[in-house]
Amino acid sequence: MSRSLRLCLLGCLLLLLPVAAQAQPAVHPTLALMPLPAQLSLEQGNYRLSREFGIALEGEASERLLRAGERFLRRLDAQTGLFLQQKWPVTDAQTAAPMRIRSARKGELRLHEDESYSLQIRPDGILLDAPTELGVLRGLQTLLQLVQADEEGYYFPALRIQDSPRFPWRGLMIDVARHFQPMDVLKRNLDGMEAVKLNVLHLHLSDDQGFRMESKLFPQLHERASEGEYFTQEQMREIIAYAGERGIRVVPEFDVPGHATSWLVAFPELGSGPAPAELERNSGVFDPTLDPTNEKTYEVLNAFFAEMAALFPDAYFHIGGDENEGRHWAANPQIQAFMKKNGLADKHALQTYFNTRIMAGLEQQGKKVMGWDEILVEGLPKSAVIHSWRGREGLETAARQGYTTLLSNGYYIDLLHPARDHYLVDPLPEGHGLSPEEAARVLGGETTMWSELVTHLTIDSRIWPRAAAIAERFWSPREVRDVADMYRRLEPISLQLERLGLQHLRNQGVILRNLAGSRDIGPLQTLVGVVEPLKGYTRNTNGTLYKTYSPFTLFADAATADAPDARRFREVVDRYLATKDPAARAEILNWLEKWKANHAAMKPLIARSPVLKEIEGLSESLSTLAALALESMQEGPARKAYVRAFNHKHLQKQLEQARRQGGRTELQVVDALEKLIRVHISEGTKEWR
Amino acid sequence: MSRSLRLCLLGCLLLLLPVAAQAQPAVHPTLALMPLPAQLSLEQGNYRLSREFGIALEGEASERLLRAGERFLRRLDAQTGLFLQQKWPVTDAQTAAPMRIRSARKGELRLHEDESYSLQIRPDGILLDAPTELGVLRGLQTLLQLVQADEEGYYFPALRIQDSPRFPWRGLMIDVARHFQPMDVLKRNLDGMEAVKLNVLHLHLSDDQGFRMESKLFPQLHERASEGEYFTQEQMREIIAYAGERGIRVVPEFDVPGHATSWLVAFPELGSGPAPAELERNSGVFDPTLDPTNEKTYEVLNAFFAEMAALFPDAYFHIGGDENEGRHWAANPQIQAFMKKNGLADKHALQTYFNTRIMAGLEQQGKKVMGWDEILVEGLPKSAVIHSWRGREGLETAARQGYTTLLSNGYYIDLLHPARDHYLVDPLPEGHGLSPEEAARVLGGETTMWSELVTHLTIDSRIWPRAAAIAERFWSPREVRDVADMYRRLEPISLQLERLGLQHLRNQGVILRNLAGSRDIGPLQTLVGVVEPLKGYTRNTNGTLYKTYSPFTLFADAATADAPDARRFREVVDRYLATKDPAARAEILNWLEKWKANHAAMKPLIARSPVLKEIEGLSESLSTLAALALESMQEGPARKAYVRAFNHKHLQKQLEQARRQGGRTELQVVDALEKLIRVHISEGTKEWR
Repeated sequence: MSRSLRLCLLGCLLLLLPVAAQAQPAVHPTLALMPLPAQLSLEQGNYRLSREFGIALEGEASERLLRAGERFLRRLDAQTGLFLQQKWPVTDAQTAAPMRIRSARKGELRLHEDESYSLQIRPDGILLDAPTELGVLRGLQTLLQLVQADEEGYYFPALRIQDSPRFPWRGLMIDVARHFQPMDVLKRNLDGMEAVKLNVLHLHLSDDQGFRMESKLFPQLHERASEGEYFTQEQMREIIAYAGERGIRVVPEFDVPGHATSWLVAFPELGSGPAPAELERNSGVFDPTLDPTNEKTYEVLNAFFAEMAALFPDAYFHIGGDENEGRHWAANPQIQAFMKKNGLADKHALQTYFNTRIMAGLEQQGKKVMGWDEILVEGLPKSAVIHSWRGREGLETAARQGYTTLLSNGYYIDLLHPARDHYLVDPLPEGHGLSPEEAARVLGGETTMWSELVTHLTIDSRIWPRAAAIAERFWSPREVRDVADMYRRLEPISLQLERLGLQHLRNQGVILRNLAGSRDIGPLQTLVGVVEPLKGYTRNTNGTLYKTYSPFTLFADAATADAPDARRFREVVDRYLATKDPAARAEILNWLEKWKANHAAMKPLIARSPVLKEIEGLSESLSTLAALALESMQEGPARKAYVRAFNHKHLQKQLEQARRQGGRTELQVVDALEKLIRVHISEGTKEWR
Repeated sequence: MSRSLRLCLLGCLLLLLPVAAQAQPAVHPTLALMPLPAQLSLEQGNYRLSREFGIALEGEASERLLRAGERFLRRLDAQTGLFLQQKWPVTDAQTAAPMRIRSARKGELRLHEDESYSLQIRPDGILLDAPTELGVLRGLQTLLQLVQADEEGYYFPALRIQDSPRFPWRGLMIDVARHFQPMDVLKRNLDGMEAVKLNVLHLHLSDDQGFRMESKLFPQLHERASEGEYFTQEQMREIIAYAGERGIRVVPEFDVPGHATSWLVAFPELGSGPAPAELERNSGVFDPTLDPTNEKTYEVLNAFFAEMAALFPDAYFHIGGDENEGRHWAANPQIQAFMKKNGLADKHALQTYFNTRIMAGLEQQGKKVMGWDEILVEGLPKSAVIHSWRGREGLETAARQGYTTLLSNGYYIDLLHPARDHYLVDPLPEGHGLSPEEAARVLGGETTMWSELVTHLTIDSRIWPRAAAIAERFWSPREVRDVADMYRRLEPISLQLERLGLQHLRNQGVILRNLAGSRDIGPLQTLVGVVEPLKGYTRNTNGTLYKTYSPFTLFADAATADAPDARRFREVVDRYLATKDPAARAEILNWLEKWKANHAAMKPLIARSPVLKEIEGLSESLSTLAALALESMQEGPARKAYVRAFNHKHLQKQLEQARRQGGRTELQVVDALEKLIRVHISEGTKEWR
């Protein structure tokens, strides 16, 4: 990997040393890059930032690169307050500027395009060099994450980075069907994607709960089946252009033949069974399905897909295909007769018949078709891409059978599991057992933001910062999997994402102020710091507790995965129990005192805000358990009396109480508190036996 | 005003008592309405909210009313978490629903349309009755502000309101030229306007720093003079529709013939002097001016204005006309010759010549033309509307001369004066001296959000909540002017505005986290609570300290007018000094201890974040003065020694230091701290003399 580079700075030609060949994707304790680059070696010294900092683009500069450079300058300025004098990068290669950018060609917005770059920071200047502009975009994001500060000012540490992605397809899927997500949500999330080097925005544009894309051919689709919440074609072109500026592809999905209530609200005559009267308001799997035996289905779909194929420039087109249980097919005698006549043994065969016809139409439009796991049944053309959501097996089977494939199983961030769970899922883990040729068919993965339970107010906090950890899985070498270091870096990256406009941090306060009817939300913040929303599919009992129009402005919506205080507390308890470190003990006492006092502070809030009643038990449990844990931490003679008098049944009852959900959230410190108490009881018992 | 109404609830006809004739615009200590209604009388009991709450629309329901009803339901649900069962208002008058809405006609989006409504809340139901749908929209906002809670749940208090606006033109001007404000900023501000019954969004669409509207006739305008930041015509139609749904008119302004750098970047040949090479980056008044002696100027303007007249449906069209100093006119011999030839005595006469020709074109398009003060010179057609920004005199002169007129002087919220200053400015104060006929020409006012120093991140905190106080001035009876009560209500209204999506509260944390590079922003919050940005035009020295592309992510951008802690502190100091109330004393001690300790907590933040160095002195001054004030509050014998040893020079020096700006902000508690210290010294001196 070693190579020489020449850095032209201030008119001088400087010969640089080759990049150290042994550079590792090492964990650098002072830097907070995410994803970690493939190779990084720190060098001596720093490049000091001043208001004279500026960028020169070598060769012919594209509009995209000029704007990317300007965006970089403004963000750097917003973060440092330097009042940079340069508004735009200069494009004349003769002009002196401390940073030079060089790219050989524009690069195409397509799968497998070169996104590599090399970045050299020296005390006297910076060089970003990439085969394509896409690599420049990636490198600029790395550089922005490298801003450091000391008492003298801001600087970039001297270093060399040689970087390229592990997987070519690194996606975020946003479901805009269940809850529509307006333009500004998509734009700011595209900014977030760019920051962590994700390169595919997959839009789930239709489902039972809504059809979110304007059709000029069939306006009844968006007019009857969106309640006014859809993207116009002009808006979608704006999104595609915005994404393209950031080196991000946009892949549309229109889910067929199931998840099709919205299709059938617009086109009842295309249904396999009774036509739905209105859009679905609940979550789950529903019966309305397109009729694959009706020629008009193909007329409409082929024409609509041709319209969309022209709108979306990307080579890939997602047709969904998941969770069709075939109930309406089974109940429809005409469909059953058709299957018999055509030798279609079961619903899978019928769906493959359907897929094959749809795919033929899309391939005529020059598209490669992709679908969820279920489309992979015998007879599926090899050109299809299998999007694996049900498990790794699907991915491996697809790759073995010669299909290209993507992993989403394990990356369902809507289920609100902690970042670590997703982070350790690897599309190609060590010992995966695929041949090199098969492994090459694994294109990467997508994290999926299904939106049954999110609105524009909460979606950012469901995507970020966890999607950054997943982005690292898709970009960085397989060996990068130190969970503690990932969490260390996730905190500054989260702030970086906020600077770009993401609302994952700020909107928590909005929800809590709404609940409290006041700016004084201290006790609520204390509680929300140690709870997480119910995980998996448990928050929405039977898929019917929440309708699409239910309020998503409640305590559970303020809570996030990876409750930050809970994680810190669990860590400090483990450290304390392992080492008896007095600093850890002091920190624990601090937390416990705060929690013990919190319920008393919550009570007047709850009295004023009936909407908070649902968390009264949770709040009380936290205070009660914290008080019990505080007692258990007594030292000296008091401990003896305490241990003797200890009421195990009472503890058991309190623990059970504390493990119940409240407001569709759960306390995340109960295990740690229990451990703390039981260890102390056990130690005390030994001590005074 | 008394009248009888019949309320049809649950199939029963109930005869209600007439509204008490003596109802006053009284201040109700438990309610937080803004603007206060013209007449309100509280009655016995409450209407209790449950998930069965719903709305029935009488007669034929328009789409707008259906959507307004749904918006109301969803907001009510978001605030209360009731999980309301009704998604849409029902429209069949036969269906029972606890709330009924009645309006006789749709109402036009035009000046002087009826916006009155009456609202009756009884324990068994609610009736909202209005001559037009606009009145219904206004009444729904009143109702949403009436949500109350107790331990039993949420409710509306029983009452009767009869309400109508004092002025028909109640505007907010947003300058999208100096810093472009994207779609989502306009939409959420329209939601805020609706909430406080403002009814005109005036968009300042062009200025020296940018031309923000797409022209299909002259694409060079937006292509060359916006740097890509402009509204497409489709977007503007979306804004106009969004505003219309909320009963808000949209009035465009294209500022001519001065403030015209952007025009001339696109059309250098229309200039009166040397053509500007690029958009202006500084703030102020600049020379580039359209040439009123060039026929092509009129060709372009008339054609462009005709294009815009078709896009903007409102009857009014604003041509700016302000701050043309005429330097390029004076320096251009051709223009001087033209003036001589046509008997135009001075630049005012020439501008009137220009205005008259422009107005003729616009009047052909069916528009009424408006402009700033300066357009009012002899010969101006009486059809023009004078928009008074320089002072009340302009307004009165215009009204006396037979022009309709609007007040903006006193409502410049970009200058960051406290709400009270604007609140007490009245377009028609008591004793105004105009005849009834002249007074009727005063249509109302507009608060103006000039955007030299704001971006999308900060604009909401510069508009809200102060614009709500100004909205009350435009809507409520003249007698409503209790400042303390206004501030009391402003706090809950501010939270209400946040619920609608406004970012005035949440974005402060974003800026502070950016500055601190951390989530731990406690010391910064303490400091920002007692500072305000420099007021008037002093923040931006000479108009050149900040360029359009400077960072607006600094401490001054986190600070707001009406620093909330400073206001509370000043109040409690006054109360304490007047009454020696021990509770006030305790509160003061609390503040002082917090401030005294704050600088020590700030130091590590400043050490990590060089961007914070500019507020080091400010932070230190707050702590030093707080410590001095704490000492002065000693009681008993300690006070004697303290008073004897008191160093007046030291205090003077510290006060001077504390009155200096830091980071373009100023401490707002220095006077109160000085008062506190001096009173104690003086009392102590008397005591021990």
